[in-house]
Amino acid sequence: MVQISKPQSARTSRESAAPSPAPTSADVARLAGVSRATVSYVLNNTSAVRISEPTRRRVHEAAKELGYVPHAAARSLRAGHTRIVLMPSPSVPAGPLYNAFFNDLQWALSRLDYTVVQYGSVSLRGDDAARAWAELRPVAVLTPPDLGAEGVEVLRRSGARAVITLGPERAEGAHALLMDHREVGRSAGAHLVERGRRRIGVVLPTEHGLDHFARPRLDGVRDAVLGTGAEVFELPLTYDEESAGQLVPEIVELGLDAVFAYNDEYAMLLMRALQDAGVGIPEETAVVGADDLMLGRLLRPRLSTVRIELPSGQELAALVDRLVRAPGAVTESHDMLRARVVARESS
Amino acid sequence: MVQISKPQSARTSRESAAPSPAPTSADVARLAGVSRATVSYVLNNTSAVRISEPTRRRVHEAAKELGYVPHAAARSLRAGHTRIVLMPSPSVPAGPLYNAFFNDLQWALSRLDYTVVQYGSVSLRGDDAARAWAELRPVAVLTPPDLGAEGVEVLRRSGARAVITLGPERAEGAHALLMDHREVGRSAGAHLVERGRRRIGVVLPTEHGLDHFARPRLDGVRDAVLGTGAEVFELPLTYDEESAGQLVPEIVELGLDAVFAYNDEYAMLLMRALQDAGVGIPEETAVVGADDLMLGRLLRPRLSTVRIELPSGQELAALVDRLVRAPGAVTESHDMLRARVVARESS
Repeated sequence: MVQISKPQSARTSRESAAPSPAPTSADVARLAGVSRATVSYVLNNTSAVRISEPTRRRVHEAAKELGYVPHAAARSLRAGHTRIVLMPSPSVPAGPLYNAFFNDLQWALSRLDYTVVQYGSVSLRGDDAARAWAELRPVAVLTPPDLGAEGVEVLRRSGARAVITLGPERAEGAHALLMDHREVGRSAGAHLVERGRRRIGVVLPTEHGLDHFARPRLDGVRDAVLGTGAEVFELPLTYDEESAGQLVPEIVELGLDAVFAYNDEYAMLLMRALQDAGVGIPEETAVVGADDLMLGRLLRPRLSTVRIELPSGQELAALVDRLVRAPGAVTESHDMLRARVVARESS
Repeated sequence: MVQISKPQSARTSRESAAPSPAPTSADVARLAGVSRATVSYVLNNTSAVRISEPTRRRVHEAAKELGYVPHAAARSLRAGHTRIVLMPSPSVPAGPLYNAFFNDLQWALSRLDYTVVQYGSVSLRGDDAARAWAELRPVAVLTPPDLGAEGVEVLRRSGARAVITLGPERAEGAHALLMDHREVGRSAGAHLVERGRRRIGVVLPTEHGLDHFARPRLDGVRDAVLGTGAEVFELPLTYDEESAGQLVPEIVELGLDAVFAYNDEYAMLLMRALQDAGVGIPEETAVVGADDLMLGRLLRPRLSTVRIELPSGQELAALVDRLVRAPGAVTESHDMLRARVVARESS
């Protein structure tokens, strides 16, 4: 349904699987009914030239409709794209496992001659993020799935040969590397039920940015106890001793015989508070962490944990490279996360 | 001493404080005695065009002498530079404090409208690294000091308005954000001597990439014990239980009455091994960590630690911004790292 009376719009092309050629500033000028110079002044925010507000708006609207973003890289003017791979920068609260995974992936991509550009999960979301990123003309983008179908389209039209989501869900038009943290909760829940536990607390960190991981883990525990007669209780916990101390009487009053403590660090915090209050671990309350950190092995009783396995950075980099080299109409989806319980003394 | 018979060479300009205008591919073509097209073919590694090996070599040598790197960003063609700030990506072994510091800084720079590009500490070193980074035409570069004076010059000639080293030493021509980890060791050493300890072990992690931090910390302990009659012993330790277990008899045989364990995580590992062997902490051997992590407060005895204070990301970002806006001939140097002991029960 391409309309030929005006330049092909982002809306019509969005229905086709392969991205159409990137729109140029000339397309924007034509649609807005202004000169290319005016487009350049407006989009580069030049203050030296006075341009009326309605004209400014018209240019912005035309650019938006066409999915046009100003070119950043001279190399991309020739090649159509760069060797830049955009990926989220690992955020501190995500923990050492995730950090190691990202470092590993970045290293492997660099070895394949990609320039890895990391962006913090700062202020931009969805379309705005996509447009900002598109200015760098990345050849591939790794992104959380909340980018959405429109954001994916903006990136593909700007020349990204692979847009790949990393997270629990898929986004339309993008490849997906699925990281389903329900699997982590499911393993922990099944293990605790198997050991005869029936009243299971699940720690939900109150720290910003951990919900992505914590909610699916909770859901996973719920999945695991389904039909077993066991009950699940939510335990919000801030990562400090005071919050942990306050949680202990609640755990005792509820008569919880097990806690899945989100990860090993929260588990260590909670174990200390329980032990200081004289609660026997695992006799009265079993504790299970996740991530299989060294510290769990150093605790007494030794901490049971869920070991999370992700593919190596090298495997993933090879996958990204393949998707860049052969950008097809069909999007791929890969399950990435495996989880299994390492049972020690605390459960 | 500028020679006017040929284009100004990198060597002569290196002596002046302010960077001279970036050399162009035309300069390279002139010096190599070839066409601009040939320069482009050679430097972009075009395989479609056959170019003899001697010509290829001549172009590469001319480019190297002039400090020429191909332009990457179209925007930089107009503005002379981008809004890109290059900074090292935090590596996992550097620990959570350093990671938090980098995330914080990246966030603050993004808020000032810089595009932060992180590079892994992968394969490139010195000049090679500088040339690779210069292709991105960063407006500022944060780098370890081992870049060297030549690397600094390459970056400045390519348009970087601020080259800033981050680490224990300075590099000629660059601003310096000094992170002197001797201060960490000095604090720990002074604390232990004050508590009457005379035979002090210092843990040196064997893990790759930690030497930058560990060696200055050791030197700091040596500084602190100077003239006190106390002795210092090096204790190489790999971050696993086996290595910690092997270190215990050595500590006992040497009669060490204190250990500065590099950081809190190594301290936890070593404390567990000492306790499992029945060594009294702190009666027989005091243990001090560093970083003031939560886990230290959760250990019994509670872990004494060195708290490291770095400026906030916002302060640092403002500093980078100021250096970019007013690039002067005079390089600045700032001490960044403060350290103080948090004495708990383990020392």
